Amino acid sequence: MYDADTTREETLDPRDWDEFRGLAHRMVDDMLDHLASLREQPAWRPMPAAVRASFARPLPREGEGAEAVYREFVERVLPYPNGNLHPRFWGWVQGNGTPLGMMADMLAAGMNAHLAGFNQAPAQVEHQVLRWLAELMGFPEGASGLLVTGGTIANVLGLAVARHARAGFDVREEGLQGGRPRMTFYGSGETHGWARKAAELLGLGNASFRRVPTDAEFRVDPEALTAAVRADRAAGLHPFCVIGTAGTVNTGATDDLRALAAFCREEGLWFHVDGAFGSLARLAPDLRPQVEGIEEADSLAFDLHKWGYLPFECACVLVRDAEAHRDAFSIQASYLAETTRGVNAGGLPFADRGVDLTRGFKALKVWMSLKAHGTDALARLIRQNVEQARHLAGRVEAHPELELLAPVPLNVVCFRYAPAGVGEAELNAVNEEILLRLQEGGIAVPSGTVLGGRYALRVANVNHRSRREDFDALVEATARIGGEIRAEAAGAAGRAG
Amino acid sequence: MYDADTTREETLDPRDWDEFRGLAHRMVDDMLDHLASLREQPAWRPMPAAVRASFARPLPREGEGAEAVYREFVERVLPYPNGNLHPRFWGWVQGNGTPLGMMADMLAAGMNAHLAGFNQAPAQVEHQVLRWLAELMGFPEGASGLLVTGGTIANVLGLAVARHARAGFDVREEGLQGGRPRMTFYGSGETHGWARKAAELLGLGNASFRRVPTDAEFRVDPEALTAAVRADRAAGLHPFCVIGTAGTVNTGATDDLRALAAFCREEGLWFHVDGAFGSLARLAPDLRPQVEGIEEADSLAFDLHKWGYLPFECACVLVRDAEAHRDAFSIQASYLAETTRGVNAGGLPFADRGVDLTRGFKALKVWMSLKAHGTDALARLIRQNVEQARHLAGRVEAHPELELLAPVPLNVVCFRYAPAGVGEAELNAVNEEILLRLQEGGIAVPSGTVLGGRYALRVANVNHRSRREDFDALVEATARIGGEIRAEAAGAAGRAG
Repeated sequence: MYDADTTREETLDPRDWDEFRGLAHRMVDDMLDHLASLREQPAWRPMPAAVRASFARPLPREGEGAEAVYREFVERVLPYPNGNLHPRFWGWVQGNGTPLGMMADMLAAGMNAHLAGFNQAPAQVEHQVLRWLAELMGFPEGASGLLVTGGTIANVLGLAVARHARAGFDVREEGLQGGRPRMTFYGSGETHGWARKAAELLGLGNASFRRVPTDAEFRVDPEALTAAVRADRAAGLHPFCVIGTAGTVNTGATDDLRALAAFCREEGLWFHVDGAFGSLARLAPDLRPQVEGIEEADSLAFDLHKWGYLPFECACVLVRDAEAHRDAFSIQASYLAETTRGVNAGGLPFADRGVDLTRGFKALKVWMSLKAHGTDALARLIRQNVEQARHLAGRVEAHPELELLAPVPLNVVCFRYAPAGVGEAELNAVNEEILLRLQEGGIAVPSGTVLGGRYALRVANVNHRSRREDFDALVEATARIGGEIRAEAAGAAGRAG
Repeated sequence: MYDADTTREETLDPRDWDEFRGLAHRMVDDMLDHLASLREQPAWRPMPAAVRASFARPLPREGEGAEAVYREFVERVLPYPNGNLHPRFWGWVQGNGTPLGMMADMLAAGMNAHLAGFNQAPAQVEHQVLRWLAELMGFPEGASGLLVTGGTIANVLGLAVARHARAGFDVREEGLQGGRPRMTFYGSGETHGWARKAAELLGLGNASFRRVPTDAEFRVDPEALTAAVRADRAAGLHPFCVIGTAGTVNTGATDDLRALAAFCREEGLWFHVDGAFGSLARLAPDLRPQVEGIEEADSLAFDLHKWGYLPFECACVLVRDAEAHRDAFSIQASYLAETTRGVNAGGLPFADRGVDLTRGFKALKVWMSLKAHGTDALARLIRQNVEQARHLAGRVEAHPELELLAPVPLNVVCFRYAPAGVGEAELNAVNEEILLRLQEGGIAVPSGTVLGGRYALRVANVNHRSRREDFDALVEATARIGGEIRAEAAGAAGRAG
């Protein structure tokens, strides 16, 4: 038995709290300076080779101290992001985060609360936030929910509840290995890649996800959906769920959610809505009609780190029937047994609603941000983003050399440089090069996508720092760079000729 | 088309940066004061009814400002945690976090980096951290890995890779619905609850997880394991994976991992190790023999927010065969297409290794902590925690009224108050009451569990703030409170008689 050692016990707390306090203040000052000066920084810049090479150092056996490692962060990490803090970043539906969200994450990490549940104020904060979010989405007061990392897992959890609630057998015990008819689910071909991930993860298989054709506005074709469900039923399969999308990732399209809800009721199917960013449009009264039907979903997934403007990671799944939610995941272990008093009174309700047992205090940044800014401010900003997207679409349509490639119902704009008389293959190559030069020049960060074979510059605007002038700058730069690339090509052809 | 509005555009950045800076500094000061004074605070305290009621307020339509919401945090949230910051918290294997980890999370939230991948320094930080963690765990240089929220999802991912690699058919496309022989996996009855969650989530079904009996030291019985696999094979089923545990949650036991690895090689089974906290013992040279065999696993899951002392959420899954890892999850979407230049050069490697597409910058706190403290310091602290557990076990064994209920191979101590001549039923009731009074009195936060029908006080020590004297205080308080409860009961019986 160990007993004789009388050396002083170590800790990872700072030896000198005042010295650490000084460093912590500098960290805050530097980050706030950084955030306040984003507009003077490039939207993106490539990492120099020396910086990249510096991340190949050997395992640090001996500590170098917080001061030294922070210096390295400032020199080698902070200057080389993917750009998503910047006022002219509109790539891949990534939010900016906020200064208050940043400080809330510091407070959350400092408290280090474990949100399986427990008899603690942080659990009450998460309960309150979930009630607020349910109210914002038009879900009933008794609805259940959970904060999770991102849209994919939020959607996976919704689909897992659907699988359990609509299986008609004990899918938790038996799994999908019982040789029963294949369970199938449905969504448009524009459904986000999470649906494939979910189908695979849950053991349903990608073959079980039926991709239904869309109309010209990228919304699911209701007749094709009906036909697909009927055909599967006729073949002896087991349709269990329909996915509606509020705001597709490619173009911001929203399915006719009310029609889908009605169809699901008639057919006894679970109705899950992926509202990753689109569902947030519900906050703005004039945008709400576009996403109507969300409130009829059996489950809904959405991100707060996109159009909720919060730092990563923070998404939410809501489930109308709280019992169905709990039934899909609840597990009891003896060392987790609930007590009526003490730290574990009230049990671990959040662990019973998803995959994670250990969960951090994501709820704090939601709680602080909703209370500090108010939901009316969020609604105004969401509306502002849509107005900016419409402004950009208008500028594109008015420009002789630019072309809109999809309708702009919400905050996603797909367009390209397309002067008259240029062939499709060349346009694709030129626009891909435009995208890279916009990024490499530090001008702006849109992303690219392909719509009907045509390469599109894609602006997904969930940026609370963007101004109208930023979109004007994008229009100007796109046309200018497009012209430069064509002139270079013509020059090269001339020299070669 | 929207165009006429000329109102000034809004943002969620502070209107007055200096004012916000002042608030941010106060937040840092308050948190550091809080952390520096933990020893003077109770280990836990119940929430007053008024505080609990304050979390039932209506949705905040109008903002009240950051200052007001922070005041509410200080008054109603910070004082009522579940206790896991405290030097005498040893419940449920929850770490304390560190001040540096707290500030690293602030920096991460400030940068708000999106870690699907991208051509950015944060991705290099995660790559480097994963290489370091692989080295610490004895995995080969080419091994793959991913930082995730917690041990459950880390283990789920490992099992999902196993399912894909050992299916013998295209499980991603077909799922488990093809009517094929049932895929089964194996672990001891002491395996953590994640295994059931994983079996259910992945569509394998709880029935597919074979719980193999353990020996007196709570380690899997190798003969029973062999028999179970043989019997399933004989029945036409499809065994695919064995789970070894390094550090069980109940008692800290570790399976004979080398034997399990050898068995899996012979039988063509995937070997997954759940080393949630136990695998970290590998860092300390004198503890390493206990967890030998980890380095032979095909996949390994472990937490950095437990015995890595980091704030939630931060766990890691390592996969020996990088290609098998990628093959299990990789998906390509047109709007995510990799480019050779620009922001998306290098693609989204992390999204191809798990469920999440959107991922935060968890890697920063790992990187900063490993570099600032050094892995030697972590090894010393881990060893210190084990020594403290042995010290506690020694004090329990030496105490006439206390009893050790399980061996103490690592950092978990299960014991009870058990004066001579008291029946089992009364001992269970008394010890459950002792636990509640330890917590309610703010003295210490162990948790409880049941071992062979006996209620145990369970100390899981991953606490970098604990000192030997804290365990002495626990021993003293347990015996004292036990005596008080028995005296109360005797008094009540006397009055009733």
